[in-house]
Amino acid sequence: MNGARLHSRLAELATIGPIDGGGVSRLALTDDDRAGRDLVVTWMRDLGLEVSIDGIGNVWAIRPGTEAGPAVMCGSHIDTVRTGGKFDGNLGVLAGLEVIEALAEANVTTRRPIGVAFFTNEEGARFAPDMMGSLVYVGGMSLEETLDVEGIDGCTVGAELDRIGYRGTAPSPGPAPHAFVELHIEQGPVLEAEGITIGAVTGVQGISWTEVTIEGQSNHAGTTPMSLRHDPGYVAAAIAAFVRELAVDIGHPQVGTVGRIELHPNLVNVVAARAVCTVDLRNTDEAQLQDAEDRLATFLTEIAEAEGVTISVRSLARFEPVVFDERIVTMVAGTATRLGHTVMAMPSGAGHDAQMMARVAPSAMVFTPSRDGISHNPAEFTEPHELEAGANVMMQVMLQLTEQEL
Amino acid sequence: MNGARLHSRLAELATIGPIDGGGVSRLALTDDDRAGRDLVVTWMRDLGLEVSIDGIGNVWAIRPGTEAGPAVMCGSHIDTVRTGGKFDGNLGVLAGLEVIEALAEANVTTRRPIGVAFFTNEEGARFAPDMMGSLVYVGGMSLEETLDVEGIDGCTVGAELDRIGYRGTAPSPGPAPHAFVELHIEQGPVLEAEGITIGAVTGVQGISWTEVTIEGQSNHAGTTPMSLRHDPGYVAAAIAAFVRELAVDIGHPQVGTVGRIELHPNLVNVVAARAVCTVDLRNTDEAQLQDAEDRLATFLTEIAEAEGVTISVRSLARFEPVVFDERIVTMVAGTATRLGHTVMAMPSGAGHDAQMMARVAPSAMVFTPSRDGISHNPAEFTEPHELEAGANVMMQVMLQLTEQEL
Repeated sequence: MNGARLHSRLAELATIGPIDGGGVSRLALTDDDRAGRDLVVTWMRDLGLEVSIDGIGNVWAIRPGTEAGPAVMCGSHIDTVRTGGKFDGNLGVLAGLEVIEALAEANVTTRRPIGVAFFTNEEGARFAPDMMGSLVYVGGMSLEETLDVEGIDGCTVGAELDRIGYRGTAPSPGPAPHAFVELHIEQGPVLEAEGITIGAVTGVQGISWTEVTIEGQSNHAGTTPMSLRHDPGYVAAAIAAFVRELAVDIGHPQVGTVGRIELHPNLVNVVAARAVCTVDLRNTDEAQLQDAEDRLATFLTEIAEAEGVTISVRSLARFEPVVFDERIVTMVAGTATRLGHTVMAMPSGAGHDAQMMARVAPSAMVFTPSRDGISHNPAEFTEPHELEAGANVMMQVMLQLTEQEL
Repeated sequence: MNGARLHSRLAELATIGPIDGGGVSRLALTDDDRAGRDLVVTWMRDLGLEVSIDGIGNVWAIRPGTEAGPAVMCGSHIDTVRTGGKFDGNLGVLAGLEVIEALAEANVTTRRPIGVAFFTNEEGARFAPDMMGSLVYVGGMSLEETLDVEGIDGCTVGAELDRIGYRGTAPSPGPAPHAFVELHIEQGPVLEAEGITIGAVTGVQGISWTEVTIEGQSNHAGTTPMSLRHDPGYVAAAIAAFVRELAVDIGHPQVGTVGRIELHPNLVNVVAARAVCTVDLRNTDEAQLQDAEDRLATFLTEIAEAEGVTISVRSLARFEPVVFDERIVTMVAGTATRLGHTVMAMPSGAGHDAQMMARVAPSAMVFTPSRDGISHNPAEFTEPHELEAGANVMMQVMLQLTEQEL
């Protein structure tokens, strides 16, 4: 494959919706998203591919094989968060395009058809939920319901699809592929920290998000003895400290984060009346994740009793872990090794379209390193040779999937 | 003394600057403060008292004794926070007025002169610092510097004093009284919790306020293993938990509060990049307070090292503890007992004008209970019989101070 062409396409797509610091802003179904879509669709058509667009605006292109039947697909997304980078999503789509162009240039026709897709609104930054397009593609949400979703600016998905000309006619749910592979930047620090080029992604962590509201008694910080306090600020802090202990105690791959804490009235000399914090728990193992949730719930009950505060919880999100197809994961690891790259098996901490596709087809992912673990930021960066390594691994895996039985 | 008249004056003063919930809003040197001042000055003059006003707007009235020389003074303030109650400050001033009126009605002339004062801007809610008037009165801050202080609305103290007609001519620093007694609501829950009517205030806690800023590394909450995190949110929580432990470990009367915590970006799924929190430490014992500060500093150094974050601190306030005159404190306790009230010795957790007056004269305070420990709030409440009990104790203490040697 042609690495220079891949880099050039990544750079060209990044000129649409550019932001300071070398980043990209192409919120789903905006004019910039349309311009990005038009560019990628042009590239697809330039390769002579048949392009399909479904009712939620998912776009895919298939190169026929010597046999008919379901295609070996790859893909990702080209929408970004408001202050995104060049590679998140785009890499998987443009690497897929490069795979197909390389096959065309080499005059190779695969046994099974091979294709590349980009899914609508993976980021969820304008419309909820995230991974919307792939969720609809696999029948996880009805097209009708999804078209009525209202975004942060009050526009609906359906109206915006019409406006930008991407409400297609291909049916939802879409055809299940023979297999699905997604190349993506890691968005975390593990590969860089371990000095490894390729991640063979074993699955996607389950997610449990809880908002915790603590009501206590606001008091003068000078006149209220410690023993008479019912301090929601202290309780929020104790929860954050507990979440850290919990994650460390359960051990890798459990993670736990309190990323949001708000005290009211939030003044130096006032014991807070109320605190709100969030707990983000993730694990690839559903039983462990449930254990973490149970232990958090027990802690909340105990500390509410001990501190004389009232605690209420609200679930913000709950997704079970997704396990990728072991055969493809093994194929990714073996292929990376064969191509001379270092590789490690790892879960994905973030959500990806591949986790939706895994509902209807054997699926897996290939990760490349993220410098400093940074993503959703203009500073997002992966070395060019790492991008190429990832694309080559995906290509070789897709070729095996087109020719062999799983 | 006439309890009904005291309650009636408290109620009448509370009609100036009324707010929802039965509270009062008379920020220092506003039109409402002027109207409150005018009312109290009218009452002073109606009693035939000589009224003095100094350059910072402190007002005092003296009833001559049979001997000349420094007066036995009482007093407090009549400015309030933006959402204040009826009793904070006002009680001490109007009880002092009642003491003098009761003496006049009984045709009693004390040996030493006896007087009542109200000090400018005790609350500090419009102009910094708080306890401004009494601080200037005792020479702790120069009049010239104080007149130039700019308030939250951009007005200066001097201009506002001129505007409301309360820039007087009595010199600063003012005359040191023979002794000073301040009656005030507790503003804390201790008396109510202990079922006691009178607090014999032994001193005012020293205050140490520190703002702590923690810089770490923002990361994806799903993709960043616990071992690779540098999480300012966790560190802020650990500080809040440590402050609780520290206060409990040092023991009463040490208190410690983290009342403000801010995370950036403060999102459920992002390990924070930065956190800011405040630590409020108070103790009546300077050595213990310094010990608490030292232990906090050590903890901050250790956790910055352990978590790989950068911690910077900024002192927001630092006041040494004030110890009231032991003879007057004993007199307050003995008098309360003699009058049939329950009494306990206790420190003040909040700042008061009496702590400034203590720099130039033997001083002490009398506390009455605050329901639920609430103050700086329209819900601030003290039972009428408790208000009277406090006023009676103060009256008897002042009479002893006018007649006896300390």
